[in-house]
Amino acid sequence: MKVGIVGLGLMGGSLALDLRKHNLANKIVGYDRNPRHKKEALELGLVDEIVEFDKLKECDIIFLAIPVEGIIDALHNLQDIPPTTTIIDLGSTKEKIVKSCPTTIRKNFIAAHPMTGTEYSGPMAAVEGLYYDKIVVLCNTEQNEPLHKERAENIFVAIGMQIVYMDAKEHDLHAAYISHLPHAISYALANSVLKQEDPKSILILAAGGFRDMSRLAKSSPTMWSDIFKQNKENLLTSLEDFKKELRYAKELIENEEWEELKKWMQNATTLHQIF
Amino acid sequence: MKVGIVGLGLMGGSLALDLRKHNLANKIVGYDRNPRHKKEALELGLVDEIVEFDKLKECDIIFLAIPVEGIIDALHNLQDIPPTTTIIDLGSTKEKIVKSCPTTIRKNFIAAHPMTGTEYSGPMAAVEGLYYDKIVVLCNTEQNEPLHKERAENIFVAIGMQIVYMDAKEHDLHAAYISHLPHAISYALANSVLKQEDPKSILILAAGGFRDMSRLAKSSPTMWSDIFKQNKENLLTSLEDFKKELRYAKELIENEEWEELKKWMQNATTLHQIF
Repeated sequence: MKVGIVGLGLMGGSLALDLRKHNLANKIVGYDRNPRHKKEALELGLVDEIVEFDKLKECDIIFLAIPVEGIIDALHNLQDIPPTTTIIDLGSTKEKIVKSCPTTIRKNFIAAHPMTGTEYSGPMAAVEGLYYDKIVVLCNTEQNEPLHKERAENIFVAIGMQIVYMDAKEHDLHAAYISHLPHAISYALANSVLKQEDPKSILILAAGGFRDMSRLAKSSPTMWSDIFKQNKENLLTSLEDFKKELRYAKELIENEEWEELKKWMQNATTLHQIF
Repeated sequence: MKVGIVGLGLMGGSLALDLRKHNLANKIVGYDRNPRHKKEALELGLVDEIVEFDKLKECDIIFLAIPVEGIIDALHNLQDIPPTTTIIDLGSTKEKIVKSCPTTIRKNFIAAHPMTGTEYSGPMAAVEGLYYDKIVVLCNTEQNEPLHKERAENIFVAIGMQIVYMDAKEHDLHAAYISHLPHAISYALANSVLKQEDPKSILILAAGGFRDMSRLAKSSPTMWSDIFKQNKENLLTSLEDFKKELRYAKELIENEEWEELKKWMQNATTLHQIF
């Protein structure tokens, strides 16, 4: 099986490592718009060869491991692939991508969202096992041809993932709460501290709590502004819900309703029971 | 050295383990209002003996590892300790505690805030090494007698901590941004998700990002409502700053100003450079 990977950063690079580890590809070719990424991906041995975009069409499977706006463009540039070629994206949004997929290749295109990552980016950030024991959401697979669906499933299972099937619309709403909103919050928290008079003297006190809460704020702005763009409405809805919770807590603090505040916290701790 | 620990939960229990490991106490006695905690602390061997509160006054050092409102009460009940007895609190707020310390024992009382913890509580949550390689803030030590100050410093250094000296007022403002605000945010995020129609189907998608962002929401409401109470004004100030950031991001998303949004994210990522 010849595999092509578009985007040789954290997600694409880590995928290459796992494909190799599990003998899922005879040859892995890569494409990236960034010359430095191409060079690093070759040097790190993530891919066997860097190819021109059009050469990817000779692959059995093409992974799109690029920002979500780029995925839409790439799908348009892959309209003329052979019917036996599978395309799989790894984007964090699904509805707009599925909708904008050219009908000619809709059967070939598997809309996937692996729920994994780190705050780092680029080929140097690639790590083996990034996908292991993680969830991957596959959306609207009823629109896929069995050949392509099974190929994607086999690969994700082989690298240790658990598959969840979901409608793209539902995925985007859920992803807003579980991933996109937390990123927005983390960026906002980091900026709140950084804009203080002397952030360094505050940050010297940072322990595990702040470290966790600000980790996502180190994520790639290029990737995340695209995600916010594509999932605008759901993100705004989730932001509204979050702000409502924060407003409620603020009122309780202002009015010194400590017992009510404790109840509100107690409700939050029930997360323990599910998760 | 005979050490007394008031509060045999995560902080007090872990401290007992470290004091023992580093041979810093001949005898450790404990006090807790919760009968289950007393029993567990004895069974786990965290303390040698459970004593009545008044018996603690026979110790060389008394640690107050209880919620911050309880610390104020405990200090009032320890007014008649001998001049050679050191009291050290481990509370997350400092200004109200320092101000409310009876003047008779102000020289004996070391106001300390170890920047460490986990989201768990109770004696079973105690772990060895919780304090290792962490920061401890000591506040207003110019009001302490050298004997007591040095005793506290020696213990904190012996268990592997790095000491930072700070004015209590400054500490509380910094702690609001670095610790109290992140807790408020985490509780709010957890509640936002839990109040959705089907939180379980959202939470199945949770990966490292959400796990990190919601971890603090599992912290003890009793402990944290007390902290919010004592650091009310600073917390409200930090919440206002955070809400400003969030409001700005929301406006950019609503107005589809993606380049500006990317810049806002980019600013947040500069945290990388400091931290």
